[in-house]
Amino acid sequence: MLGNRILQLVIAFSFTISVYAQEKHGTFVDPMIGSEGLGRVFIGPAYPFGMVKPSPDCGSSQNSGWSPLPAPVTGFGQLHVSGTGGGPKYGNILVMPFTGPLNQTDQASLREEEKVKLGYYSVTLKKSGIQTEITTADKVSFYRFGYPGEKERSLKIDPGFFLGEQPVPDAREAQQFVGSEIELVSPTEIKGYSRIRGGWNNGRAYTVYFYAVLDQPVSGYTSWKGKKLYPGVKSQFDSGEKTGLLLSIGGKGQVLQMKIGISFLSTLKAKSNIDHEIPQWNFETVLTTLENKWEELFSRIEIDSSSAPEQKKLFYTGLYHTMLMPVNRTGENPLWTNDQPYYDDFYTLWDTFRTSNPLITLISPKREAEIVNALIDIYKHDGYLPDGRSGNANGRTQGGSHGEAVIADAFVKKLEGIDYGAGLEAMLKDALVAPGGNEEQEGRGGLTAYNQLGYVPYAIPRAGNRTVDYAYNDFNIATVAKGLNKQKVYERFKKQAANWKNLWRDDYMDNGSKGFIMPKDTAGKWLDTIPYGNSELQHPTFIYTPLTRETPWYACHWCGFFYEGTSWEYSFGIPHAIPEIIEKSGGKEAFRKRLDTFFSKGFYNVANEPSFLSPTLYHWIGRPDLSTERIRKIIASSFLPLPNGLPGNDDSGAMSSWLAFHMMGLYPNAGQPYYLLNSPLVKQVIFHQENGKDFKLRADGLSAENIYIKSAKLNGKVFNQAWITHADILKGGELILEMDAKPSDWGTTVLPPAANN
Amino acid sequence: MLGNRILQLVIAFSFTISVYAQEKHGTFVDPMIGSEGLGRVFIGPAYPFGMVKPSPDCGSSQNSGWSPLPAPVTGFGQLHVSGTGGGPKYGNILVMPFTGPLNQTDQASLREEEKVKLGYYSVTLKKSGIQTEITTADKVSFYRFGYPGEKERSLKIDPGFFLGEQPVPDAREAQQFVGSEIELVSPTEIKGYSRIRGGWNNGRAYTVYFYAVLDQPVSGYTSWKGKKLYPGVKSQFDSGEKTGLLLSIGGKGQVLQMKIGISFLSTLKAKSNIDHEIPQWNFETVLTTLENKWEELFSRIEIDSSSAPEQKKLFYTGLYHTMLMPVNRTGENPLWTNDQPYYDDFYTLWDTFRTSNPLITLISPKREAEIVNALIDIYKHDGYLPDGRSGNANGRTQGGSHGEAVIADAFVKKLEGIDYGAGLEAMLKDALVAPGGNEEQEGRGGLTAYNQLGYVPYAIPRAGNRTVDYAYNDFNIATVAKGLNKQKVYERFKKQAANWKNLWRDDYMDNGSKGFIMPKDTAGKWLDTIPYGNSELQHPTFIYTPLTRETPWYACHWCGFFYEGTSWEYSFGIPHAIPEIIEKSGGKEAFRKRLDTFFSKGFYNVANEPSFLSPTLYHWIGRPDLSTERIRKIIASSFLPLPNGLPGNDDSGAMSSWLAFHMMGLYPNAGQPYYLLNSPLVKQVIFHQENGKDFKLRADGLSAENIYIKSAKLNGKVFNQAWITHADILKGGELILEMDAKPSDWGTTVLPPAANN
Repeated sequence: MLGNRILQLVIAFSFTISVYAQEKHGTFVDPMIGSEGLGRVFIGPAYPFGMVKPSPDCGSSQNSGWSPLPAPVTGFGQLHVSGTGGGPKYGNILVMPFTGPLNQTDQASLREEEKVKLGYYSVTLKKSGIQTEITTADKVSFYRFGYPGEKERSLKIDPGFFLGEQPVPDAREAQQFVGSEIELVSPTEIKGYSRIRGGWNNGRAYTVYFYAVLDQPVSGYTSWKGKKLYPGVKSQFDSGEKTGLLLSIGGKGQVLQMKIGISFLSTLKAKSNIDHEIPQWNFETVLTTLENKWEELFSRIEIDSSSAPEQKKLFYTGLYHTMLMPVNRTGENPLWTNDQPYYDDFYTLWDTFRTSNPLITLISPKREAEIVNALIDIYKHDGYLPDGRSGNANGRTQGGSHGEAVIADAFVKKLEGIDYGAGLEAMLKDALVAPGGNEEQEGRGGLTAYNQLGYVPYAIPRAGNRTVDYAYNDFNIATVAKGLNKQKVYERFKKQAANWKNLWRDDYMDNGSKGFIMPKDTAGKWLDTIPYGNSELQHPTFIYTPLTRETPWYACHWCGFFYEGTSWEYSFGIPHAIPEIIEKSGGKEAFRKRLDTFFSKGFYNVANEPSFLSPTLYHWIGRPDLSTERIRKIIASSFLPLPNGLPGNDDSGAMSSWLAFHMMGLYPNAGQPYYLLNSPLVKQVIFHQENGKDFKLRADGLSAENIYIKSAKLNGKVFNQAWITHADILKGGELILEMDAKPSDWGTTVLPPAANN
Repeated sequence: MLGNRILQLVIAFSFTISVYAQEKHGTFVDPMIGSEGLGRVFIGPAYPFGMVKPSPDCGSSQNSGWSPLPAPVTGFGQLHVSGTGGGPKYGNILVMPFTGPLNQTDQASLREEEKVKLGYYSVTLKKSGIQTEITTADKVSFYRFGYPGEKERSLKIDPGFFLGEQPVPDAREAQQFVGSEIELVSPTEIKGYSRIRGGWNNGRAYTVYFYAVLDQPVSGYTSWKGKKLYPGVKSQFDSGEKTGLLLSIGGKGQVLQMKIGISFLSTLKAKSNIDHEIPQWNFETVLTTLENKWEELFSRIEIDSSSAPEQKKLFYTGLYHTMLMPVNRTGENPLWTNDQPYYDDFYTLWDTFRTSNPLITLISPKREAEIVNALIDIYKHDGYLPDGRSGNANGRTQGGSHGEAVIADAFVKKLEGIDYGAGLEAMLKDALVAPGGNEEQEGRGGLTAYNQLGYVPYAIPRAGNRTVDYAYNDFNIATVAKGLNKQKVYERFKKQAANWKNLWRDDYMDNGSKGFIMPKDTAGKWLDTIPYGNSELQHPTFIYTPLTRETPWYACHWCGFFYEGTSWEYSFGIPHAIPEIIEKSGGKEAFRKRLDTFFSKGFYNVANEPSFLSPTLYHWIGRPDLSTERIRKIIASSFLPLPNGLPGNDDSGAMSSWLAFHMMGLYPNAGQPYYLLNSPLVKQVIFHQENGKDFKLRADGLSAENIYIKSAKLNGKVFNQAWITHADILKGGELILEMDAKPSDWGTTVLPPAANN
């Protein structure tokens, strides 16, 4: 009875919070957007860039842990990533409340009802009737378990659990068990760790330490190791087998609360994280603090308050997704200690450099500078900038070495507090020193050939997109070198920035368009029929066209000419050379036809980052109106404020930040100091910038029909170009767009920069 | 008074042990041999291949921790390596008894007297009069502190201490602090860890966990963090600062005992190591167990009991040094978990492959097979075989990738229980995939050029010895490939095994000898004057001759053409091609002159592994008598049963095992299935082999004058060659040498194999 009353109180209180928070941007965040289908976003509570990410784990095969109903829930793990594909990572330190005796470790249960909002997750377990509520601080999860009141209250703590387990030892992309340990330290304290290796990035072993504190003492306990239960035994040391604890909770109350501190250093550090972050036992205080942390960031970009709730939901959830990762682990680096920030879970820069990092820069340049400094510090201590990094280990690369793009973007946007000299050194390491050994861990795979031939020859995995990406990364190096007056470096890399041309097959026609990035062998011969693999008996071949997506059956799917894409996609993906591509395609009209073919014939892949820039390429032929049309179509058909509302893996907010930018009418060309202007989806956006200067972007007359920009004024002066520099935004001021129902000649003459660094 | 009586008892008991142990080989071990001067051996107690190696640490700059008197002792660390050069490694978890109040962390003291024998170390501290005695199990150190009885008994436990600390952050070869933690768990238990990175191999962070148990409770405690003391505070969590505990011991006794369990997994595992290895409190039992562990191994090679005590000392100390490392860390691998053995502290194979590994093979082929399996398992999980490895991290390489030599040696000696297919795969990774990034971490630096040109061109560091070593490693690959019927691999690497010729400058004369390994540039041009570094302003040059040892002032000392040596040395260091070198030197007579010049003019460096084989090269010109003379001279002038009795860094037993082999009259050519025969220094050696078959080597008539072999009989049959196969030894039996005072024609005709695999 008491239990029910408490639950009612809790619900009432939650409602109060909701009403109060109605005014806050955070109320528009719907963590379920992108949770189903390909989105794979993390749905649990988290701080901005927060270390702890508790979530239900439904079996061990989901990337974010969570599955839609009716899948049973195995328990609640404390660490997750958001929006990823491939083999899962994390899922460590599983907890699961249950009722009844401590006689089995499997306590999976079906779910009754889930409630998810910013910073809050709740579910009722069918088997036991227990309601589990979760909120969190930065490094500490906070659980409130509402037991139904009839049976003994029990709790499982399972540091042996992790996501992505496979029966085959050392399977690629599978997380693999190394060790775990658990100890009941006092009647209210449990500690231990989970040590796991592998996962998508094939990383080294990482260790997640925890310290759990209950607000009521346990009255009984059974530990386990491997398959064996040990009633009355308080601890199980690490002998390479899975360990855990089943606990009976004494006393009579129905509600049990638990804090779980996490650390990558030690159990005592995990405990100190609790002491530091959540010294009390009030669930609502923790939740409110979390909401305020987010609100501070959301309020930096204020969209028109009259926008439809669905738009607000899409937009602020987009910002939310963008700031779930990378994870701020400053003070939690087990590899080295200094005064630099430490971030992990770059998953991956290949995905995030285009829109996530630039969006963070707009929201908080200080935060992005911290992230860049963390990247440079990783280079200094681990030898290379990461492209992907998770579990304190670089890995893996998909195409370029996009640390270059991230550093160059910071440089051209003049982020302060970064040693760009060290940044350039880090970029040059990528460009000059072959990573060797594991060519997909970091740096540039195929670099030796690339530097010798000016392209990555066929047979080296991902030769096509590596060449295209490296050329852009070389452009990034040239940008920074020029800015730092390193003339020789600048000249070399400016030249190398044109390396994409070495794989551009000028005369190749496909679907009415001319010129494509095509495979070439080491001897310089274009390949129409490509040999694959090294089979000396069968000499298998494979026809390659600009639409080929598959790799031969005998080759791994990430070993083809392009990663997750076709030549139609990647041949547009050269963000520093659009004018040249237009020319090589046969001029403006031919390029327009090429783009139209791309979108109308379904060659465009909305779910893949290499095509992120493509819908705005019409800008370079003086047709921002066509970019606008294209973007609106894509958003209308592919983005929804619903669980299946993201068209592809969110990839650490990449997809979400693409949407957020286009909703504002801005689109960055990362590594270059400007944004393309499109007609926004909301009538007004105000950037409350960290430098104290507001910048307003207003679309007067915007409506369902009035989607074209007729004219624009920047701070009162006529502004006739469809792009604006970052410097202009930094200065503060306002850009007023006049909207109309038909295309105009606005933005048709002063084309976006040719990227002539 | 009681205290003194106890001490007397202890001394009496030790004496009893000594008397009893007089019969044992272990009594001839003198851990002080090689402790002073360049030897740098570890002097504390240790199990064979044991994980824990407690030793006094005298400041933080000594490689083995220990310094001769009168240097003060800072405390006693639990982990050390033996015989190493360069930046130190380990020295973790320092303990130090003292008397008086807990008001300062520095408790360094001068020493009164040290007693060192197999498994036992004792010292009296001048400052306090405390006697510290140490013995050890495999993963647990055992301390007995005899306090003088007047002042309060105090004890410092300092997990922040480590060897090789430098004021410069991230200094090369310096160990660097990452974190530490300490907690007084109960009045008799302390636990925590030390997390350190770097050191000579520039390795990633490693963590040493400890669990200390006292036999009497503490009555007071002061912890510290950084420079601040915290009286009455039991624990200090890891916040990236150094932590420790000062303890007051309650009660009245003078003797305090302490066990410190060590683990690379966790503090609970460290505790379980204590429970498993030393469940009781008897110092003598621990010591006796240790002695028996060693005795079992020493007794496998029984030298003539009438040998002089000095000879026994040199010989069994040689065996002892050989089995201090690598370290058996099976069950203590924090990186992956499986059923394979795990060994660390390969320091380095470049040093040990010639004699240490072969000596372990003779003593215990099962042990060597374990070591080889550990190497292969490291390749499987870390990507490359190590050449050097310490603190769970590969690094660094000096010349070749000598995992090849170690695996090939196991293969030709038919060690059982090894997957040689996997071994070949590991070797091929070295030979085919450039390590990239950090070219001195693992694999073969300069491999791309080596595989393109057939040699490592000048300007790549250590081009000379890398080329020579890689050619031998290629020979090793060919050996295994042939044995496994991999014909194509065999042919390729048999060809590559001749790559040393690409740097052999045929016409080059120096000191009357012809033909030397000399620097060549990428274009194939021999270099007399070599450019060094990339300075574009000064174009500095440097004259290179076969005696050049220095690198220019502007280049690091490990970046020259040869590592720790000259062309005179390395031009002999091609162990699979001696007949060809003889021919290229101008034939047998010219080669004899060349060798004589080498030794008489002081070009030979007794302290360096690349010259290990050189004194026996006379065998290949049919003059084993000259080899014998040379070896005896070297031993007489460079090896002594004294603290300064080793002529160079012992390098994990490399120097000691060279001596042990020559004392027996055998010398291996590692990677090849035979031993060269020389006249032994002892009259008889019996190998009690693991396969149950004894092999006896007897030198009848051996005396100070009779140092030449006149004739030999193997199992009763005339044996007229100065080399014997490993297979012959494995079979059991006896080889009887007839000694004489003058050289004979024995061994002059059937020369050692030409290594024609």
